[in-house]
Amino acid sequence: MPESHLRRRAALRTSLRERGLDALLVTDLRNLRYLTGFTGSNGALLLDAEDEAGSTFCTDGRYQQQAGEQVPELALVVDRASALALAAGAGTRRRVGFESQHVTVDALDALAETARPAEFVRAPHLVEALRLIKDDTEVEALRMACAAADRALADLVEQGGLRPGRTEREVARDLEGRMLDHGASGPAFASIVAAGANSAVPHHRPTDAVLAAGDLVKLDFGALVEGYHSDMTRTLVLGNPADWQREVYDLVAAAQAAGRAALRPGAQVRAVDAAARGVIEDAGRGEQFVHGLGHGVGLEIHEAPSLAKTGEGTLSAGMAVTVEPGVYLPGLGGVRIEDTLVVRDTGPELLTLTTKQLVVV
Amino acid sequence: MPESHLRRRAALRTSLRERGLDALLVTDLRNLRYLTGFTGSNGALLLDAEDEAGSTFCTDGRYQQQAGEQVPELALVVDRASALALAAGAGTRRRVGFESQHVTVDALDALAETARPAEFVRAPHLVEALRLIKDDTEVEALRMACAAADRALADLVEQGGLRPGRTEREVARDLEGRMLDHGASGPAFASIVAAGANSAVPHHRPTDAVLAAGDLVKLDFGALVEGYHSDMTRTLVLGNPADWQREVYDLVAAAQAAGRAALRPGAQVRAVDAAARGVIEDAGRGEQFVHGLGHGVGLEIHEAPSLAKTGEGTLSAGMAVTVEPGVYLPGLGGVRIEDTLVVRDTGPELLTLTTKQLVVV
Repeated sequence: MPESHLRRRAALRTSLRERGLDALLVTDLRNLRYLTGFTGSNGALLLDAEDEAGSTFCTDGRYQQQAGEQVPELALVVDRASALALAAGAGTRRRVGFESQHVTVDALDALAETARPAEFVRAPHLVEALRLIKDDTEVEALRMACAAADRALADLVEQGGLRPGRTEREVARDLEGRMLDHGASGPAFASIVAAGANSAVPHHRPTDAVLAAGDLVKLDFGALVEGYHSDMTRTLVLGNPADWQREVYDLVAAAQAAGRAALRPGAQVRAVDAAARGVIEDAGRGEQFVHGLGHGVGLEIHEAPSLAKTGEGTLSAGMAVTVEPGVYLPGLGGVRIEDTLVVRDTGPELLTLTTKQLVVV
Repeated sequence: MPESHLRRRAALRTSLRERGLDALLVTDLRNLRYLTGFTGSNGALLLDAEDEAGSTFCTDGRYQQQAGEQVPELALVVDRASALALAAGAGTRRRVGFESQHVTVDALDALAETARPAEFVRAPHLVEALRLIKDDTEVEALRMACAAADRALADLVEQGGLRPGRTEREVARDLEGRMLDHGASGPAFASIVAAGANSAVPHHRPTDAVLAAGDLVKLDFGALVEGYHSDMTRTLVLGNPADWQREVYDLVAAAQAAGRAALRPGAQVRAVDAAARGVIEDAGRGEQFVHGLGHGVGLEIHEAPSLAKTGEGTLSAGMAVTVEPGVYLPGLGGVRIEDTLVVRDTGPELLTLTTKQLVVV
């Protein structure tokens, strides 16, 4: 792990020098974890553009021991106001970048005051730009997170956890517990379990609604492993599927396959969305696919790139994304199928391995 | 519930007029929930300083139905870029306040550009100032959250969930599950379960360390109910307490009682801290109490006021706070005892009702 942090900090230093910055004050905790491995809830890093020796890490007394274990290679300052303490030590530098997408207006006032005569310069998304392309360490964490979710769902189904009479809430709790059993540190987000007509609500939160025979059951969930999020949706049916359920399922599965097939380096993100959306539109159900096709995933559950109609830019090898078309029939039910994948030169690498055949429980 | 939201918005309008603001753009989701009851993950409110009719709520398509149910009384705009959409509609106003403690530097750039010719004015913590004093609806939610934690711990102990051979992680998961059984929507924060020497680490995260006979076991946990957080710490002992365990326990319990007794309207927050800290210092253990005495609690797990040596200001009736002194002996073990209480004219109202006698399991 430490080598990857060194490599990431070196890449960031190159980016700083290209922008004429003498240092970057990193305050977003996800970016801090990416650059150092630190997992505490308070910390900041002043990364010098020239070398490691000029860089300083800060956290408060609660995490002093932890910082010594996780970030032994950087000089440590212990202070509760971590960003301010580093700003106070920035005085000999001229241009210090800050994460303007993360620092609040009030926080900048305080930082700029403290750091004088150093000038604070907007430097948004420099670390996020590096995080777009996942390195091997990151893909391995994503793979473990996806495996925990795969195994949890397999256990749930095999052991009869999905059955008429249970509530959505009971199923969600069962599924989340099974992810912990398989090595997750927690759920990646609040699990969606939506049965029957509720499955037509894209972001339904689990209720005390009871699963019934004939229901579609939509499960959208993921595991958190080493800070990395998996994201998977499967829609199952309790008993023999009705014709309309089978038709909608097959349509969404075809759209999802088309979306996955469009994942290649150089592809426009909106073209990937269009590849899946076109399948649904051709079936006359375009109005029933009410959201974007997918999103990047990593240290955040939603990060760049956005695979959507209005998305900008192209894919590159090493990006991790979801592909998750859905068709929703209000009052009746809906189907969404979602995988987490890594864009590769040789075709997308699938990380969520649960079958996409319609599972009849 | 709707009456309390109307009342809170009316109080905020008074605060806006006092500051010469024509409106406030509310973007912090906790403040949004406080003012409207909306629980989605994307939304914003433009609160007009004059009347309800001039105010507009915005969320995206995922939450359109939910907004209709939770905030039927306000005009609704559906837009994914909720704050920007409201800024675009602010044009006829002159001075629009924004939550400068929450809005990022980049977000302000975009808002100010969109809202021209309206001027965006720093207006930090206006809603937080109202949230300092909990109304009856809020105290009731806190009471339910505290009760869920009380009941979960009672069940855990009665049903043998705290015993040598279990890991810290198993106990944490058991405790969190039991809070869900008692009506919590989730844990209020990542539960701390710290056994033996680990109990000397103030913010220890549960590990696979195994509970052993003779251990102190420190449990710091809480439940989330209707968005409100409870916070309680109890330290128990597995088997007969050693003399030093009993001594430290009694000392912390005495300090905690002194802190609770100092909770009255008009008291300086630092005097409350001093009341508890003095007991520990008088016993020669001041160096072993390494953190502040407590904090406000409500829609956030940590909010104003801060009961600490360096805290500013005084208490008022209706504030909800924790009182949580601790004594930590590195390598040996530690004790912390924490309650959630409401400051009242008639003396503090205790919401966490679990005994503070040393429980021997």
